[in-house]
Amino acid sequence: MTEPLPIGVLGLGRMGRIHARHLAALPEARLVAVASRRSEAAHEVATLYGARAYTHYDDLLADRELRAVVIASATHEHAKHVEAAAAAGLAIFCEKPIALRLEDTDGALSAVAKAGVPLQVGFMRRFDPAFVEAKRRIEAGAIGQPITFKAISRDPQLPTAEAEEALVRGNLFIDLGVHDFDMARWLMGQEVCQVHAVGGALVYRRLAEAGGVDNGLLSMVFADGALGGVELSRNAAYGYDVRTEVLGTEGALLIGGLQRTPLSALTPSGVTHDVFPWFPERFADAYLAEIRHFVQCVRAGEFPSPDGQDDRAALQVALAATESLKSGMTQVPVTSKVTGT
Amino acid sequence: MTEPLPIGVLGLGRMGRIHARHLAALPEARLVAVASRRSEAAHEVATLYGARAYTHYDDLLADRELRAVVIASATHEHAKHVEAAAAAGLAIFCEKPIALRLEDTDGALSAVAKAGVPLQVGFMRRFDPAFVEAKRRIEAGAIGQPITFKAISRDPQLPTAEAEEALVRGNLFIDLGVHDFDMARWLMGQEVCQVHAVGGALVYRRLAEAGGVDNGLLSMVFADGALGGVELSRNAAYGYDVRTEVLGTEGALLIGGLQRTPLSALTPSGVTHDVFPWFPERFADAYLAEIRHFVQCVRAGEFPSPDGQDDRAALQVALAATESLKSGMTQVPVTSKVTGT
Amino acid sequence: MTEPLPIGVLGLGRMGRIHARHLAALPEARLVAVASRRSEAAHEVATLYGARAYTHYDDLLADRELRAVVIASATHEHAKHVEAAAAAGLAIFCEKPIALRLEDTDGALSAVAKAGVPLQVGFMRRFDPAFVEAKRRIEAGAIGQPITFKAISRDPQLPTAEAEEALVRGNLFIDLGVHDFDMARWLMGQEVCQVHAVGGALVYRRLAEAGGVDNGLLSMVFADGALGGVELSRNAAYGYDVRTEVLGTEGALLIGGLQRTPLSALTPSGVTHDVFPWFPERFADAYLAEIRHFVQCVRAGEFPSPDGQDDRAALQVALAATESLKSGMTQVPVTSKVTGT
Amino acid sequence: MTEPLPIGVLGLGRMGRIHARHLAALPEARLVAVASRRSEAAHEVATLYGARAYTHYDDLLADRELRAVVIASATHEHAKHVEAAAAAGLAIFCEKPIALRLEDTDGALSAVAKAGVPLQVGFMRRFDPAFVEAKRRIEAGAIGQPITFKAISRDPQLPTAEAEEALVRGNLFIDLGVHDFDMARWLMGQEVCQVHAVGGALVYRRLAEAGGVDNGLLSMVFADGALGGVELSRNAAYGYDVRTEVLGTEGALLIGGLQRTPLSALTPSGVTHDVFPWFPERFADAYLAEIRHFVQCVRAGEFPSPDGQDDRAALQVALAATESLKSGMTQVPVTSKVTGT
Repeated sequence: MTEPLPIGVLGLGRMGRIHARHLAALPEARLVAVASRRSEAAHEVATLYGARAYTHYDDLLADRELRAVVIASATHEHAKHVEAAAAAGLAIFCEKPIALRLEDTDGALSAVAKAGVPLQVGFMRRFDPAFVEAKRRIEAGAIGQPITFKAISRDPQLPTAEAEEALVRGNLFIDLGVHDFDMARWLMGQEVCQVHAVGGALVYRRLAEAGGVDNGLLSMVFADGALGGVELSRNAAYGYDVRTEVLGTEGALLIGGLQRTPLSALTPSGVTHDVFPWFPERFADAYLAEIRHFVQCVRAGEFPSPDGQDDRAALQVALAATESLKSGMTQVPVTSKVTGT
Repeated sequence: MTEPLPIGVLGLGRMGRIHARHLAALPEARLVAVASRRSEAAHEVATLYGARAYTHYDDLLADRELRAVVIASATHEHAKHVEAAAAAGLAIFCEKPIALRLEDTDGALSAVAKAGVPLQVGFMRRFDPAFVEAKRRIEAGAIGQPITFKAISRDPQLPTAEAEEALVRGNLFIDLGVHDFDMARWLMGQEVCQVHAVGGALVYRRLAEAGGVDNGLLSMVFADGALGGVELSRNAAYGYDVRTEVLGTEGALLIGGLQRTPLSALTPSGVTHDVFPWFPERFADAYLAEIRHFVQCVRAGEFPSPDGQDDRAALQVALAATESLKSGMTQVPVTSKVTGT
Repeated sequence: MTEPLPIGVLGLGRMGRIHARHLAALPEARLVAVASRRSEAAHEVATLYGARAYTHYDDLLADRELRAVVIASATHEHAKHVEAAAAAGLAIFCEKPIALRLEDTDGALSAVAKAGVPLQVGFMRRFDPAFVEAKRRIEAGAIGQPITFKAISRDPQLPTAEAEEALVRGNLFIDLGVHDFDMARWLMGQEVCQVHAVGGALVYRRLAEAGGVDNGLLSMVFADGALGGVELSRNAAYGYDVRTEVLGTEGALLIGGLQRTPLSALTPSGVTHDVFPWFPERFADAYLAEIRHFVQCVRAGEFPSPDGQDDRAALQVALAATESLKSGMTQVPVTSKVTGT
Repeated sequence: MTEPLPIGVLGLGRMGRIHARHLAALPEARLVAVASRRSEAAHEVATLYGARAYTHYDDLLADRELRAVVIASATHEHAKHVEAAAAAGLAIFCEKPIALRLEDTDGALSAVAKAGVPLQVGFMRRFDPAFVEAKRRIEAGAIGQPITFKAISRDPQLPTAEAEEALVRGNLFIDLGVHDFDMARWLMGQEVCQVHAVGGALVYRRLAEAGGVDNGLLSMVFADGALGGVELSRNAAYGYDVRTEVLGTEGALLIGGLQRTPLSALTPSGVTHDVFPWFPERFADAYLAEIRHFVQCVRAGEFPSPDGQDDRAALQVALAATESLKSGMTQVPVTSKVTGT
């Protein structure tokens, strides 16, 4: 394929707009159309990038010029949209997770398999330069055999009532944790077999009433006995904080750093630097790289990675963690294989 | 008391020698005598500091000039030596832990209580400037309410057969973990109520045969629902690595840093700095400060902290972790109170 | 102006390609045409972004659709191209410096003034987030009165014969130093009045033969008596190293950091992280921001900054430094005003 | 010599007290006596360490038990005290600089030479672990050939009137700069041949009236053409800041770091850590190591380093810088050899 890939974006929330901007900037893609239920948003983005605007997703998917679509709608609609896009024969990039229940994920994956279309899931950390380099070094044996995986994912504090509402509807282990579970599988090169979780609604009162948690800690055991620890928090008052570490028999790798801007202030109360405010700033390069990977694979007729099975496997860990929080049960019924190695 | 405190050191391994050096340097103390079964060691250290040498601990404890003693013998002898020192009416500084079994600890504490002598336990992190400042800020409300405690303690790799032998005899959660459990209680200002542990003998083969673990991860829940995560490893190929973090509702504190010497090399393969080789280098200031605190308390007729109850409480967490590793059981029968706040 | 700005790029070396890529990605601009003497390069870039290709600069400037042009040709051709672009009535973005001799700069600026077209010069550091924030804080009084400006600019080592050839033709203070001189003026908010330089050909033998220098140190005095120190080197074996510091009466600001990727390796020989390889990686955001600023100003009918007078003033410092190296003379005949405050 | 070295301390200001404390703690030395014109100080320190107190320096030097003396009196009295100590046949440790005028230094050195006593000068940076390791690596060829020496020495702000008075009496290049000039010679392994200085009284008004400077920048050229840049400031509002860097043909070494305590606070306004307040905290290890080196050399009958010639050479650079500030003259009449390599 020598022409730029004609592609559409379904959903124009924060992530949809990021994807639209990147697709408009990529010479190997052509942003043909966008869709949002909010007509104003659809037209605003369409005008900005010279694309067509739709307010119904089936109109977008029916656009005859499209060959691929980015699904960035609300999480609970992902599966439905994946199925429709597969039925339309489009290559699919879907934000993570495909669904919140395993049966919905399986339904979507089955539709994708039947249609034979490529599907990439938005685990953008796999495209972050620091994670990519860590993966490369682990595989090159730089730290010997990996024996412990550690991760911290802390979202910045959400002061608004709407944000708190979203937390009540959400699930800490799925919303926030799947990225870490994907990294656990990818960097360690094997599946998580056991999960034990503790957690609590330590900050948000309404979450406590709804039975949710805003802070959680997981211990994991991998297939070969290696250990994993993941901390998840909704409550980093100081910003966005993602740190990942792999300890091996011959060394360790630390991924992540708090400092965003290379500027330090030396003041009478100490030395101060800033922190990443949130994920779009921390993973700006990764979001561009993941969508370029998708476009390149589709143009080359190749299947991209991470795929639906990776999404499913990370969801399984998240569901096991959720279950463990209630029951203490720690076994994860693992059925997938890690891809993208 | 205006005269320097006359004090002895019982046991001249690594820790005993550190204490002897510090006591000899403190103007408010006078190192009167040292004891070691190894006569050569006793005489070497005694000559260096102008002290008397004993080869039997009861001779040391019978030294009429002594008013206090530092017990730095092998861990399994601590309880016996504490009891003898208490019987001799001496103020006691004992290396942690007092014992490996709760009943032995209780026996020693009971002897101390009966004799009415002061007892300080060697949790030197409580005297490290960074931990001290963190404690001060937490109490001042700088991070709001503490909701998550995190700790990493990684010992450097031990290549020798003897070292491996010591590992086989030891217990990861007691030998290495008690420091973190003490910090958990001290920094969070409350007791640990639940512990869940995973672990494995991932590096040392002989340890696996003996049923031991060289790497472990713990999840903990505190009395008020706050969470804790502790990672312990015998296998840091790169050096000694102690990092502690407290996340609060309004901020976080990170204690520890890998860099020992403020020297960075800028080379074609990147920027490199060194790492602390082991605990004597990392906690040099803390070891001096803890023994000074002990000497000052004894001279002033005050009871020092951390005391035997702190040792007992940290041991309880370690024992619960050991138990959890086998059974999955997670309840900690907590009976103590945190001191030193 | 509601349509995207139609713009061309003249010169397709490293910088011309960076500008072309950014212009193609900006929704508010439209990359209409590119020009390079090397026909292959012109067609490759034109095809990639759907633009027209020219192999003569006058053909590009004569393109009727163009409203603006980016001049990224060889430095010694900048002045000629600026004059031609001004004659064509185009808004001009010119890579720094406009010329190597003050009379050539003056000729170009005179042509620009006569044509009344906007001219922005490629001092991209003024758009780097860290420098921008530093400027903002200095003006807000965060460090009191600035009293010392410090800068290090070290280019990575250039192993090839061609690179060495370029060094022989170039001038350390102009090629490399103008960025620091621009930052000196901009951050301190005043002109440099005196310069004293030392330097030597300490690494490249052929440079020594040609009378050039590969390492230089400057002391500067600003109009109000504040001090400045700049180090320039062609010889950073470890990568690209730009650090800038402003010391004020109430604090200091440090801009820059060596680490590119947030990944640290913990190995038996220490902790290692990478370094920025060269300027495109360090200033990726700044290059995008400066061209967006240019496009936005032109569309809004505003004059962008930094302008030709800023280029001229920085060149004056560089020429004074060059002169000082030979004669020890330190007076700078300053005639300009700092813009962009 | 098997007995501890009997030693006295002359002068009990900040530095004298540091030396007294270290000597009292060293098993290989015995602090026999201290002297201070302030009788109270003399008795307080003497009592603390069990030493004799004198209020006249000649009484101290006449103490029959002494074999060595630390001279930590006011700078303008150093030379006189060195001469008297030499006449008394004592091994001498003298705080830097021996004198402020070259003829006084020469007089003292001549007395020392005549008496044949050992003399060590208090350039404690030569004993700082980071500087020591840097020196070792440079000599091992780790950075190729050193081509540029860079240094920053910033003293913390001095708010009191007395402190300002001291500044008026002092000389920035001598008081503060000699340490950097010593490091320049030591790390580069050769002499400084040219110096050019700029400076100003940018902060302290009274200093300006007295013709002094509180901030200065120097450019230096070494014997083999290598370059040097030194920044000196009395005005670090944020603390004590010593950074040194050597750039070589194959890499660079950065010595120094601002952070004192390994504690970082993560707050909504960024990440903050502390700074070294002043030199006793930054160079605590170095002060102990230098005095131990002196004691060991004297006990072993060896001549310690750095010696009087090192002091003289660093003073020459400082004097040349002072002269350059007035006249622009840049030649340094170098007559010494670097020792301690």
